[in-house]
Amino acid sequence: MAVGGNRLDWFPIDGIELNTLAAGIRYQNREDLLLIRCDPATTAGVFTKSLFAAAPVELGKKHLAKTSPQYFLINSGNANAGVGDAGLDDASTCCLAVSQLAGVRPEAVIPFSTGVIGERLPVVNITNALDALIAELSEDNWLLAAQGIMTTDTRPKITSRQISIDGECITLTGIAKGAGMIQPNMATMLCFIGCDAKVSQETLQDMLRAAADSSLNRITVDSDTSTNDAVVLMATGRSGVDLDQDLEAQTAFQDALTDLMLELAQALVRDGEGATKFVTVQVDGAETNEQALEIAFSVANSPLIKTALFAGDANWGRLAMAVGKVATPFDASRVDLFIGEVCLMRGGIKNPLYEEADGARVMAAEEVLLRVDLNAGDCSETVWTSDLSHEYIKINAEYRT
Amino acid sequence: MAVGGNRLDWFPIDGIELNTLAAGIRYQNREDLLLIRCDPATTAGVFTKSLFAAAPVELGKKHLAKTSPQYFLINSGNANAGVGDAGLDDASTCCLAVSQLAGVRPEAVIPFSTGVIGERLPVVNITNALDALIAELSEDNWLLAAQGIMTTDTRPKITSRQISIDGECITLTGIAKGAGMIQPNMATMLCFIGCDAKVSQETLQDMLRAAADSSLNRITVDSDTSTNDAVVLMATGRSGVDLDQDLEAQTAFQDALTDLMLELAQALVRDGEGATKFVTVQVDGAETNEQALEIAFSVANSPLIKTALFAGDANWGRLAMAVGKVATPFDASRVDLFIGEVCLMRGGIKNPLYEEADGARVMAAEEVLLRVDLNAGDCSETVWTSDLSHEYIKINAEYRT
Repeated sequence: MAVGGNRLDWFPIDGIELNTLAAGIRYQNREDLLLIRCDPATTAGVFTKSLFAAAPVELGKKHLAKTSPQYFLINSGNANAGVGDAGLDDASTCCLAVSQLAGVRPEAVIPFSTGVIGERLPVVNITNALDALIAELSEDNWLLAAQGIMTTDTRPKITSRQISIDGECITLTGIAKGAGMIQPNMATMLCFIGCDAKVSQETLQDMLRAAADSSLNRITVDSDTSTNDAVVLMATGRSGVDLDQDLEAQTAFQDALTDLMLELAQALVRDGEGATKFVTVQVDGAETNEQALEIAFSVANSPLIKTALFAGDANWGRLAMAVGKVATPFDASRVDLFIGEVCLMRGGIKNPLYEEADGARVMAAEEVLLRVDLNAGDCSETVWTSDLSHEYIKINAEYRT
Repeated sequence: MAVGGNRLDWFPIDGIELNTLAAGIRYQNREDLLLIRCDPATTAGVFTKSLFAAAPVELGKKHLAKTSPQYFLINSGNANAGVGDAGLDDASTCCLAVSQLAGVRPEAVIPFSTGVIGERLPVVNITNALDALIAELSEDNWLLAAQGIMTTDTRPKITSRQISIDGECITLTGIAKGAGMIQPNMATMLCFIGCDAKVSQETLQDMLRAAADSSLNRITVDSDTSTNDAVVLMATGRSGVDLDQDLEAQTAFQDALTDLMLELAQALVRDGEGATKFVTVQVDGAETNEQALEIAFSVANSPLIKTALFAGDANWGRLAMAVGKVATPFDASRVDLFIGEVCLMRGGIKNPLYEEADGARVMAAEEVLLRVDLNAGDCSETVWTSDLSHEYIKINAEYRT
C-alpha cells in the first residue's frame, strides 16, 4: 500500500555516478547493492542516535572525520548491526575491497547497511560483486539506485531541485528508503543527496542538520527508531557557485535542500508500512516549539488515533485524549481541534455547530490534516504520519527485521 | 480475546453495598450503571493526569476534598468528557439526585464515567434508574459490579485479599475495567477497592499512591492515556484494626493492597484489546529507576516488538532497536537481552550459543518475559503489556471511543 502520487522526475549531478546490482545478500535476483562514486567533494552526514548504532554507522562516522569520501557502498537485506566487532571487521573488509579496486584510501569509502539485525554480513557476496558494480557506474542511475536500497518500501523515493544563482544553476538530487521503524532521531533511514554546489564542510553540515530537523526529523510511521539511520549530502562543487561566499545563494540552497528533503521524508510516510492515509499533524499557538512538537508526536504516534484514521472515523475524543496525555501543561479550556477545515472542538468543548457528516467527509480523504490550536502562544510545529492498518500488522508479523 | 486464567474468587466487605442495572446509556439491555454505597469511611483517590480530564474527574476531586463520600455512581457508555461546563452540570445533577434519594449531602456522592468522549451524558436515563438501583444494594454484588463497568473488556476483573493481624482479619476487594487506551498516568482506568481497615485519610492516600505506582502505573496496552482514569480505595474501619497505630499492620496492608492492585492491573493487560500474549518487560542493572522505566516502556510500547510478539517471532533485533532508541545513554557493549531464560544477546552482541529454535520455543508461550540487563547499576523496573494483533486494529477501527 502507498498513499498519494509519485513524482519520479530527477536530474543527474555532474561528478556523481551510481550503479546497483543483485548480490544475493538476503534474496536472490533482487537489487541489494549500491555503489555511489563522487568526484572529490565536500560531504556532510547525520546519523542515528540509537545507542545500538550499527557497525557501518560507527565506521562511516570515523571515515568521514578522516578524509573526504569518494565512494559510498550501500547494501540492503542485512543491517550489519548487533554483531559486535565482527560487524566492524566486515564493514572494513568491504571498504578495503572497494578502495583496492578503485585506487583510493580505505577511509574514502563509507559503508551503509539496512535490513535484518544480528546476522553477519555476507561479505563475499559483496566483494565478488564489486568489479561489475564499478565497471558500469553512470550519472544516469539515480532511479536504479533508489530502487536498489528498498526493503519493505513499495516504491522508490527520488526527487530533484534546481536553483538559479546569478545565471548559474545548482542541481540537487536525493534518494531515500524506509517504510517502517520510522521515527528518525537526528537522521532518517537511508538518504543520499548529491549536489554540485561549492561549499565548505562546516557550512554543508550545518545546512544538512537544519534541513533534517524540519523534514526527516518530523516524520513517524510507528515511533520506532532504526539502528542504521543515515543521511549523507555530497557537494561536488562543479556548478561553480560558492555558497560560503554568497549568503543569498546559501539561503536559496538551504530552502531547496529543505524542500527536497521534505519531499523525500513525506514520500517515506506515504509509503509507510500499511499506510492508507497521509496525515499531517499541525500544532499551533503553543508557548514553545518543544511543547508543539510534544503534542504533535503524541497525536501522530497514538495507536487509537491511527486506527481511527484507518477507519475514516472523525473520532475527536481520541484526538483530545492524545493531546491531553502530554506532560507539559496547557489550558484545556482554550484548545481548538480541527480535521481539515472542520472545527470539532472550540475552547475545550465540542463545537456545537459540528456535524458528524462534515467530520466523515474530511476523514474520507486520502490526505488528512489534524490541527490543534492551543491559543497560548506563537509557536507551531508540524509532523507527518500514516495510519495503522491490518496491513501494518501483517507486514510486521511476517517480516524478520 | 484474552490471555491467561480467570480468578473470580472474592469476599464481600462489611459496610459496602453495590448494585448495577441496565439504564440504556449507550446500548440497550447492557449493564451500564453501578452504585456503590459505603458506610461512613475513609476514602483515597488517584485520578488521571490527562489535561483533558473528564467532568466527573474534576467534580469527584472537589467532592472528595470536602467530605467523606458515601455513594459512588459509575456509568459506562459515556465518558462525560469534552463537553465543557455542561458536563459538570450533568455530573452534578446525577450526584444531587442520588443525594436526595439517599438523604446525604451532594458532596457525599462521587461520579465516574467511562465510554464515548464528547457527547452529553443522558442524565434522565440515569436519574430514572436510581430508585431501583438504591432499592437492591447488597454486599454480595461485587462481581455484578465488575461486569457492570465493562466496555471493550471481554471479562470482569475482580479479586480479594485477606490479612490477619493479631487475630483480627482485614479484607480487601477490588474491581477494575479497561482494555484499551491503557497507559495509566498516576491512575488507571476505573478501579474501585473496598476494605474494612481503620485508617486515616492521609495514610490511606499514601498507601494507594504507592500501590498504584507499582501496579496500575506499570502497565500499557497501547501507550494511550484515558481522560477518565480513576482509582478509589474505601476503608470502612469495620475490622477494628487501626493501621495508623500499628506499623506492622500497615506494612502488611500495603503489601496486600499492592498485590491486589497488581493482580487487577495484570488482568487489564491480559484482557487488553486484541491481546494474544501476556508480556512482562523487566529491565535490570540500570543506573536509576527512571532509566529502567524509560527502557521498559520503550520496549513495551514498540509496535514492532508488539507485532513480533503477535507473530511469535523471537526478533531480538527489534528488541535491541527498542532498547537503543531511548534518550538516556548507556553502554551498549554491556547489554544482555533475554526472552524467558534464553539469552539472545550478551555484552551487546548476538549470543553465539543462541539457537533460533530456543527463541521460537519461548516466544510460542502465552506468557512471555522480555528481560534487559544493562549491567550498569542496581536498579530494576518491570512493566506489563500485551501484543499488537489484527484484533486490536479491528476493535479500534470499529469502536467509537
